[in-house]
Amino acid sequence: MVYAAKKFINNPNDVVTEFIEGLVETYPGLQYLDGFPEVKVVIRADVTADKYDKVAVISGGGSGHEPAHAGYVGEGMLTAAICGDVFASPPVDSILAGIRAVTGSQGCLLIVKNYTGDRLNFGLAAEQAKSEGYKVETVIVGEDCALPPPRGIAGRRGLAGTVLVHKVAGAAAAAGLSLEKVAAEAKYASEMVGTMGVALSVCTLPGQVTSDRLGQEKMELGLGIHGEPGAAVVDVQPVDVVVSHVLQQILSPETSYVPITRGNRVVLMVNGLGGTPLMELMIAAGKAVPKLQLEFGLAVDRVYTGLFMTSLDMAGFSISIMKADQSILDRLDAPTKAPSWPAGTDGDRPPAKIPVPIPPSRSTKSAESQARPKELSKQGRVLEAAIQAAATVIISLKDSLNEWDGKVGDGDCGSTMHRGATAILEDMKHHYPLNDAAETVNEIGASISRAMGGTSGILYNLLCKAAYAELKANTESEVTAKYWSKALKASIASVSKYGGATAGYRTMLDALIPASQVLEEKLSAGVDPITAFIVSAEAATKGAESTIKMQAQAGRSSYVSAENLATVPDPGAMAAAGWYSAAARAVKEQYQGST
Amino acid sequence: MVYAAKKFINNPNDVVTEFIEGLVETYPGLQYLDGFPEVKVVIRADVTADKYDKVAVISGGGSGHEPAHAGYVGEGMLTAAICGDVFASPPVDSILAGIRAVTGSQGCLLIVKNYTGDRLNFGLAAEQAKSEGYKVETVIVGEDCALPPPRGIAGRRGLAGTVLVHKVAGAAAAAGLSLEKVAAEAKYASEMVGTMGVALSVCTLPGQVTSDRLGQEKMELGLGIHGEPGAAVVDVQPVDVVVSHVLQQILSPETSYVPITRGNRVVLMVNGLGGTPLMELMIAAGKAVPKLQLEFGLAVDRVYTGLFMTSLDMAGFSISIMKADQSILDRLDAPTKAPSWPAGTDGDRPPAKIPVPIPPSRSTKSAESQARPKELSKQGRVLEAAIQAAATVIISLKDSLNEWDGKVGDGDCGSTMHRGATAILEDMKHHYPLNDAAETVNEIGASISRAMGGTSGILYNLLCKAAYAELKANTESEVTAKYWSKALKASIASVSKYGGATAGYRTMLDALIPASQVLEEKLSAGVDPITAFIVSAEAATKGAESTIKMQAQAGRSSYVSAENLATVPDPGAMAAAGWYSAAARAVKEQYQGST
Repeated sequence: MVYAAKKFINNPNDVVTEFIEGLVETYPGLQYLDGFPEVKVVIRADVTADKYDKVAVISGGGSGHEPAHAGYVGEGMLTAAICGDVFASPPVDSILAGIRAVTGSQGCLLIVKNYTGDRLNFGLAAEQAKSEGYKVETVIVGEDCALPPPRGIAGRRGLAGTVLVHKVAGAAAAAGLSLEKVAAEAKYASEMVGTMGVALSVCTLPGQVTSDRLGQEKMELGLGIHGEPGAAVVDVQPVDVVVSHVLQQILSPETSYVPITRGNRVVLMVNGLGGTPLMELMIAAGKAVPKLQLEFGLAVDRVYTGLFMTSLDMAGFSISIMKADQSILDRLDAPTKAPSWPAGTDGDRPPAKIPVPIPPSRSTKSAESQARPKELSKQGRVLEAAIQAAATVIISLKDSLNEWDGKVGDGDCGSTMHRGATAILEDMKHHYPLNDAAETVNEIGASISRAMGGTSGILYNLLCKAAYAELKANTESEVTAKYWSKALKASIASVSKYGGATAGYRTMLDALIPASQVLEEKLSAGVDPITAFIVSAEAATKGAESTIKMQAQAGRSSYVSAENLATVPDPGAMAAAGWYSAAARAVKEQYQGST
Repeated sequence: MVYAAKKFINNPNDVVTEFIEGLVETYPGLQYLDGFPEVKVVIRADVTADKYDKVAVISGGGSGHEPAHAGYVGEGMLTAAICGDVFASPPVDSILAGIRAVTGSQGCLLIVKNYTGDRLNFGLAAEQAKSEGYKVETVIVGEDCALPPPRGIAGRRGLAGTVLVHKVAGAAAAAGLSLEKVAAEAKYASEMVGTMGVALSVCTLPGQVTSDRLGQEKMELGLGIHGEPGAAVVDVQPVDVVVSHVLQQILSPETSYVPITRGNRVVLMVNGLGGTPLMELMIAAGKAVPKLQLEFGLAVDRVYTGLFMTSLDMAGFSISIMKADQSILDRLDAPTKAPSWPAGTDGDRPPAKIPVPIPPSRSTKSAESQARPKELSKQGRVLEAAIQAAATVIISLKDSLNEWDGKVGDGDCGSTMHRGATAILEDMKHHYPLNDAAETVNEIGASISRAMGGTSGILYNLLCKAAYAELKANTESEVTAKYWSKALKASIASVSKYGGATAGYRTMLDALIPASQVLEEKLSAGVDPITAFIVSAEAATKGAESTIKMQAQAGRSSYVSAENLATVPDPGAMAAAGWYSAAARAVKEQYQGST
């Protein structure tokens, strides 16, 4: 079976009028003439012919090249755009309606792409308008560099370079110049620009069958903007090579398409043909600039990259090079309200890159915070014992954790945690500043970040970073149980915020949240810290074991069926309960001796 | 064989860094940190952290969504964008480098799309930055409306609506608000917006094989921006139906994704996913606005249509609806230098359409110019005789012209010209104002335009229009031979300019140009007008016959081989010589009697 190409349209005959309706909804500065379906004319909402005291600049042609031409309507660029049907020249009456709608005493300039239908229809409209008393000038743009000259009048099509001519003419008109001068600037600009296109696929007209004469390995050079065949079909090459070829063709001294020689200043336009992502257009632009500078000896003053004159959904781009002097740059840089002229392209470029900022140096930290102290304080000894116990338990839990994880995840929870615990024990020997609890917690995060990787590595690192920030806020000399409680609470908040889980999601938080709540409660109630820790550890274990009944809400387990989950507890929660409980017991031992 | 999808890239691993290089060449307001390939951070060229006295707004995530996020860097929007590899979250160190590069004393807001990797990496960077002394707030955006809630944290992805949050936050920061207030505005905006996507094809990653699970008849609803499967696969439908479905899903009162009810004001964003032409996006926008107004009872205050958050080359779009109050509208309307924020979208809309201007009325012309005069002047009788003779010759030449055209064109030259000549004779009987030569020539153009059509119809109409304008410039009461000569010359210039042909192109101009030249010469030399006309007619015939040796340069004949062309003269040239000569003979008869 043969299918019409998939498109987001209604009746294929209505695509242009429906496009215009959407356009004026989007841009409050635009209006259209109420003459659908014959008259499809977009005009500046702020211009009425009888009061307009500047030269009107009018362009247009077949549709299918959006944003051309209607997107260039706005103060400082086009005054009206005449839209034909897809790839079809607009009729004379439609062009005349546009001329009448916006042309005041200063007359109008018609900028026409060099296609027979456009030349004739715009030409006839121009003559008719003159006979009605309007001042009209016409500039025809044909800047295609695809075919070797001379090849008659059909050889040089109007392509994306026309948009630069629109801008120059529109800025000249906005500056208050006379019709003759605006036309002269437009004509001069049209003679300074050359364009060549390349494509990976051809376009598909609305309601038509998708066709692609190029297949999976070929690309086409020197094609136009209507799906017509190009000058050559070649194997697909890296964009570097494609850009070089296109630049050579435009700037070839033999053909002299454009009067550009070494030492000149130019502007570059990389125009997407519709189906090529902006990423690829930017890559082409980024390659073209140094080539123009180094291989062709040109100064590149401005770069315009984006979708300017498309060919429906064609995958491809064109490159336009325009010789630029200061007066052309001034016109291109002049402000415009045309919605599709690229913002932020004016002015000279600063250096492209700046150095990566240097992180706050370790040397700004005190000497003690960089190494294991020679002598441990009481608190340092307790902390060391707690870390030692916590890491040792995790190492011992490796196989159980892996086994549980094998049923609900990818089976490496135990191994991952084992790597982190081992790294902590190793690093603690050498450089944990154990007398400074905050810095030590921060170093644990660094060990975990280095050794664990993956989501659990980031989550534990987050836990440590948040605790560190909270502990740092402690201005007292000793870290009391209350501060540890606050640090735990902050850690949980951080993991919950960035990890997206909370109580009942079948994660490590199902161990830590009950522990934190019980710890805070007991301390507030005046219970002694050691007991509070031990009781909260029991809450952690109970919480972890309760995950066996929980449906997963986060992480990989959320894709596992409830029946499978119901056979095992969450390994992350069990690990958290394990290290927390071991630490609590170690603290108790340190203060009370083994019981 | 299996081929990697055709793309304009070099090494697939370099696409993001090469994209950034092209981006900063295009936009002089942007720079990047010199830390490729790990650190891929685009920043405002005018911001340095130690001097920046506003809240920095930072976003980012995986690449492949261009112009997001780097295109939104600029005064009034993002201060920095952190770019990951394609569809991969940026690493913590890269985010930290961005924070350090642009964050001053007022701190920074991180705007993060709701994906686990982004949440964790940005979260960890935020915590690390806090530990270095920076003030940091984080807002996570998850506005996907594709899946019925509740479905855990993974259910609501960050999509194109995030760009609206960037704008609100960036404008709030530019207004000088504190970090807490900027974060609060961003969070509020994130809660006001809902988004849903649809696609016709999935995207292809650089260096990967093109895949399309959808085939030629299906589309996908409720998908994300990474090619992940959507909520449902359905038959392709008109975009009208698709838009209705998406709006209903976002605004469903059952799911309450967004707190929008009848009577509310909203803004609309129609976001292209990369492979869908702007024409189709505008069509969707044009349909969405009246549906929102009429079916949902909402006032649509702003419309943003274009490519905002793409998914490489995916053919599809998303619709976002944000509840808008005046303070949100002010933030969205606030000026920004971010290159990819859509220009010209601010402010209220005037009426979408205005009436087509009325052509200058026939009633403004004098009564004589509207009808055949009751009594002909001498000049009127001569003109009538010339037109009669010219048209009659063309009618008699029909078969010869068709025969010649059959060898070099599509064989209808004689029939087309016959239609024009017949119409002229008919119209002349009733309403040619023959005593006014200029108006009569204009009416001939109108008869031709109505009857002939096609390129030759336009060319002859052009000929008449240009002659009319020239004859109108004659302020004397009689049209002398000199004026007819000037009119012919102007006609030829017009046809040459708009038709693109000149002498030697094997067109009607090869008869008319020699005639015009001889006529002008003879009249200048003082030869009597009748003789000058007759001699110029001989030049026309000679010129037309010489086309037999010419290679075609214009029109359809330019595709015909020289051997075929060498057997016949150009039919258009022969027709022109025919009517010109007949007219000249008729003029001679009128003044001198038959010889």
